[in-house]
Amino acid sequence: MSSKQRIAILGASGYTGAELIRILVPMVAVDYKNIDIVFCCLPHGTTQETIAKLPAHLKIIDLSADFRLADVGVYAEWYGHTHLAPDLQKEAVYGLTELQRGKIKKARLIANPGCYPTSAQLPLVPLIKARLVETDNIIIDSKSGVTGAGRAARQAMLFAEANDGINAYSIGAHRHAPEIEQGLSLAAGDAVTVSFTPHLMPMNRGILSTMYVTLAKGKTVDDLAHCLAKTYADEPFVKLAPKGIMPSTHMVRGTNLCVFGVFKDRIAGRAIIVSVIDNLVKGASGQAVQNMNVMCGYPETTALESTALFP
Amino acid sequence: MSSKQRIAILGASGYTGAELIRILVPMVAVDYKNIDIVFCCLPHGTTQETIAKLPAHLKIIDLSADFRLADVGVYAEWYGHTHLAPDLQKEAVYGLTELQRGKIKKARLIANPGCYPTSAQLPLVPLIKARLVETDNIIIDSKSGVTGAGRAARQAMLFAEANDGINAYSIGAHRHAPEIEQGLSLAAGDAVTVSFTPHLMPMNRGILSTMYVTLAKGKTVDDLAHCLAKTYADEPFVKLAPKGIMPSTHMVRGTNLCVFGVFKDRIAGRAIIVSVIDNLVKGASGQAVQNMNVMCGYPETTALESTALFP
Amino acid sequence: MSSKQRIAILGASGYTGAELIRILVPMVAVDYKNIDIVFCCLPHGTTQETIAKLPAHLKIIDLSADFRLADVGVYAEWYGHTHLAPDLQKEAVYGLTELQRGKIKKARLIANPGCYPTSAQLPLVPLIKARLVETDNIIIDSKSGVTGAGRAARQAMLFAEANDGINAYSIGAHRHAPEIEQGLSLAAGDAVTVSFTPHLMPMNRGILSTMYVTLAKGKTVDDLAHCLAKTYADEPFVKLAPKGIMPSTHMVRGTNLCVFGVFKDRIAGRAIIVSVIDNLVKGASGQAVQNMNVMCGYPETTALESTALFP
Amino acid sequence: MSSKQRIAILGASGYTGAELIRILVPMVAVDYKNIDIVFCCLPHGTTQETIAKLPAHLKIIDLSADFRLADVGVYAEWYGHTHLAPDLQKEAVYGLTELQRGKIKKARLIANPGCYPTSAQLPLVPLIKARLVETDNIIIDSKSGVTGAGRAARQAMLFAEANDGINAYSIGAHRHAPEIEQGLSLAAGDAVTVSFTPHLMPMNRGILSTMYVTLAKGKTVDDLAHCLAKTYADEPFVKLAPKGIMPSTHMVRGTNLCVFGVFKDRIAGRAIIVSVIDNLVKGASGQAVQNMNVMCGYPETTALESTALFP
Repeated sequence: MSSKQRIAILGASGYTGAELIRILVPMVAVDYKNIDIVFCCLPHGTTQETIAKLPAHLKIIDLSADFRLADVGVYAEWYGHTHLAPDLQKEAVYGLTELQRGKIKKARLIANPGCYPTSAQLPLVPLIKARLVETDNIIIDSKSGVTGAGRAARQAMLFAEANDGINAYSIGAHRHAPEIEQGLSLAAGDAVTVSFTPHLMPMNRGILSTMYVTLAKGKTVDDLAHCLAKTYADEPFVKLAPKGIMPSTHMVRGTNLCVFGVFKDRIAGRAIIVSVIDNLVKGASGQAVQNMNVMCGYPETTALESTALFP
Repeated sequence: MSSKQRIAILGASGYTGAELIRILVPMVAVDYKNIDIVFCCLPHGTTQETIAKLPAHLKIIDLSADFRLADVGVYAEWYGHTHLAPDLQKEAVYGLTELQRGKIKKARLIANPGCYPTSAQLPLVPLIKARLVETDNIIIDSKSGVTGAGRAARQAMLFAEANDGINAYSIGAHRHAPEIEQGLSLAAGDAVTVSFTPHLMPMNRGILSTMYVTLAKGKTVDDLAHCLAKTYADEPFVKLAPKGIMPSTHMVRGTNLCVFGVFKDRIAGRAIIVSVIDNLVKGASGQAVQNMNVMCGYPETTALESTALFP
Repeated sequence: MSSKQRIAILGASGYTGAELIRILVPMVAVDYKNIDIVFCCLPHGTTQETIAKLPAHLKIIDLSADFRLADVGVYAEWYGHTHLAPDLQKEAVYGLTELQRGKIKKARLIANPGCYPTSAQLPLVPLIKARLVETDNIIIDSKSGVTGAGRAARQAMLFAEANDGINAYSIGAHRHAPEIEQGLSLAAGDAVTVSFTPHLMPMNRGILSTMYVTLAKGKTVDDLAHCLAKTYADEPFVKLAPKGIMPSTHMVRGTNLCVFGVFKDRIAGRAIIVSVIDNLVKGASGQAVQNMNVMCGYPETTALESTALFP
Repeated sequence: MSSKQRIAILGASGYTGAELIRILVPMVAVDYKNIDIVFCCLPHGTTQETIAKLPAHLKIIDLSADFRLADVGVYAEWYGHTHLAPDLQKEAVYGLTELQRGKIKKARLIANPGCYPTSAQLPLVPLIKARLVETDNIIIDSKSGVTGAGRAARQAMLFAEANDGINAYSIGAHRHAPEIEQGLSLAAGDAVTVSFTPHLMPMNRGILSTMYVTLAKGKTVDDLAHCLAKTYADEPFVKLAPKGIMPSTHMVRGTNLCVFGVFKDRIAGRAIIVSVIDNLVKGASGQAVQNMNVMCGYPETTALESTALFP
């Protein structure tokens, strides 16, 4: 129906664009008459100028990294060129839905979070805000499926190169590190530096982040679990796993869920948090649709209620 | 030829037994006339009594965990039953070849190391001995292929269950933790507790361990690299990766190699070490053959010179 | 809501049972007040007696092979024991939905088709009925993912055993051969024997059947394509691929679709048909729900409209 | 040592070049003083001119398709351009080692066979020569791992695109069809046309070809098995599987073996042959080394004795 034409997807040939289409296709009950939404799935670095030229009445959800870093100086440092739309950057709202819902409702331009940062911030931000963990020794060891690297044809991403193996990459130098640090610093009210090591493994979708933290003095693993359970008690997409259950990417494949668990470390005074998402859904296109739902006043779960595809 | 019958493999139906056969089949140049070697690939907990009944002149290389923990009390705590051959335990030599070569030469009973402990101890032990890293905050995040779990038919190991996903397991409770701690404590001259989190991923062979350590005061990542390069300079199977190269399990698949690299962390004063092995070769059957070669005075690389099978 | 309790699933611990739940969970718009449906996902050979004991007013959809073969003598020959409910067998309707819709509407007991037979019969039956292909030389070479073998823990289905390899199995002896022959014989009005070779490959879901047929005298590949396009013109789940497009299991993963294409062979007078389904959906649980929809007068696509999950 | 420099590999960046290096590295016992061998692993279509410029005393083994088709007219038809070295073509020997050993011994230029043709011709040629199967209805359904497509970065070969799926490609139009037909026609003494359908599946290495043939009048499946057993009785690399054993690509991974089995079809008077090779070894680099061994008078198994890497 004609109302559907009011959604535009720029850059639909990649994985996140294709995933947007998969999610939006069955979305028939919504009345699009009064909206005009653009999803941008363009390569990093190319969106700033494209968006600057769009009509002002459009709502924009940008899935690239172009507007994620509030400080354009940090952007320039990590992305290797001056930010091309610093005024738009001021307007952009970082779209980690559960933690920014109020701002997203009123936003015109959403910077949709990166996949690794989504998996890390959803559990860590509430814990830091509640002063339950120290911020000087946070270690994030992430394992990602291959679609996180996009659909460009590169030798390292060929089946025969990625199959049956694993390697770390961009150790200490991945562009999602400053994005995670931005979110955690904001929560801490002070500058936070994290250790972040991503790994590439033979899996289509999914991120599992294993996070090692120091408990604040006198705090316990149960305090952490309690805080997270409370924070996300009413959230449809963010879930603390039942005690003893190990989060697996299988639990979230094809869904907009983030599932995590908190575990006692052998080293006294430390805890381990394991978090899983589908990088193409909660880590990209699903969260983008969730943000659209919030911006447009739709029920937040619209088009996002599918169950995990397993096996 | 008849001389070959002098090697016995107990428990040849599992993956490590099969791998022993793969490695030993082309081994034709060795004269077996004067040896009598038994490789034990039996399930954990069943080897102690079996070995106790073997004739005293046999050399034994046990690939199970039965004799790896020198302290039979620790064994009982982690394996759930009293050790059945405490006298034999006293005689057993922990067979991490590069670090125990002298003892292995004279040993009758070798406790072949576990796969995770091999990947962790080879880089960590020399660094701890040289006092280059602190021992109070060592985090080991390991990712393993499925053969580490053995060949028993369990639902969780079915293709459809393990494919296209990853999960952590036995967080803070894996039996390889005390084995790693035993080795590191010995190197430190003091009790060391580590954080060890294993993950199961869809890969046949391979372990990648990402280790997060605090540098000793005034020490640098280059000091660590230098120490490891020097320690293993003449070793055929243990290699420091050239600077900037990320170790990948692909580099070691089907080989007896352990490859690692040392990287700077974003958190000041910390370093990241990434280590890879083939869990069935250097992590099990290959190291067992290497130990046999040392025990029998053969060239240490005999039957172990294959190149990585990639892709 | 209470109305949902009116559906029962017997044997929900296996893959087809789990898939039924995945499909049925979001199914909220249907009024179940006046129905009572039982899905049977029990192991082959155990359903006959179970069903015989169920109350007569229940509608039953059996996903096992127990009622698929109309001739209980053929059943006994292939399944190794006398049929335990020959009277019920007479009542059972073979539930290949698109080709049996009229009978399914009035049925009480549906024998849900096997996965391989679904992939083969949907394209072959109309071609045979229309006398477009000869019936004396039909070769069906099928490739299946691992879930077709069920969830029982068997060594051959372990990840390490099935990964990175392929093998044929049950050559000339697979139990789906008589089921395919039953359908093709009915279409031909005469006994048809087929060559059917299944292969097991490292994939969770999906069947691809490559079928080699002799064209009837004077007939062309275009005649075949035209017949199939016409037969399935109004079907939501059965699609002839556009000319030149090779059907891939990726097109149907997680969906109730069957997609096929017809291709010219290098041997004159012969054609090749390639057909793909998701073995757990159209090949099992999806078709079962489709049959329920037909039996209960629901829109046939209810709960079955998901798009393929790719990648 | 300097003698090793006498082997040159042109085009070593692809999979077959890398595999040549893997195979040749441990090859230390051979005296290279009096040879000069060039392996060409260049892309199809680029080798003809390169080879024409090489010094005449060099022995050349070409792994591309450039010299496989004896008829340069057929070459032009399938490869889209006039052959650039028709005189060299006359000199080239098709290097299917077991069936051309006499010619290979005296050859200067070897056209190393394609992977699919190797898997098909090794069993079919002796059967056709012995008049045990008809030649008018030979169907070859082949399943290949991804390395057969080379190492060039193409979207279709990305992990996320190839994983967890299967598709047929180049139906009736693959360039290996005329190569197979050339070999079978020579064996038959008459023009043979085959049906050949390749499939791409998620596996690094391996080809499994399922072949459907009509038995010559009065011949049986046992006659076929007997013929193949006799033909290859003394061959180290070509094996008839024991009765009842289904050939699996796992049996040959990393080896120079071709293993096949012969099976009774349900259709009377027909048989099924299943053949497996590692496409990078017997289907490319291993057979190239085998040909070198024959050309140079080395023991034919030199550097090729490795056991299958499984799992």
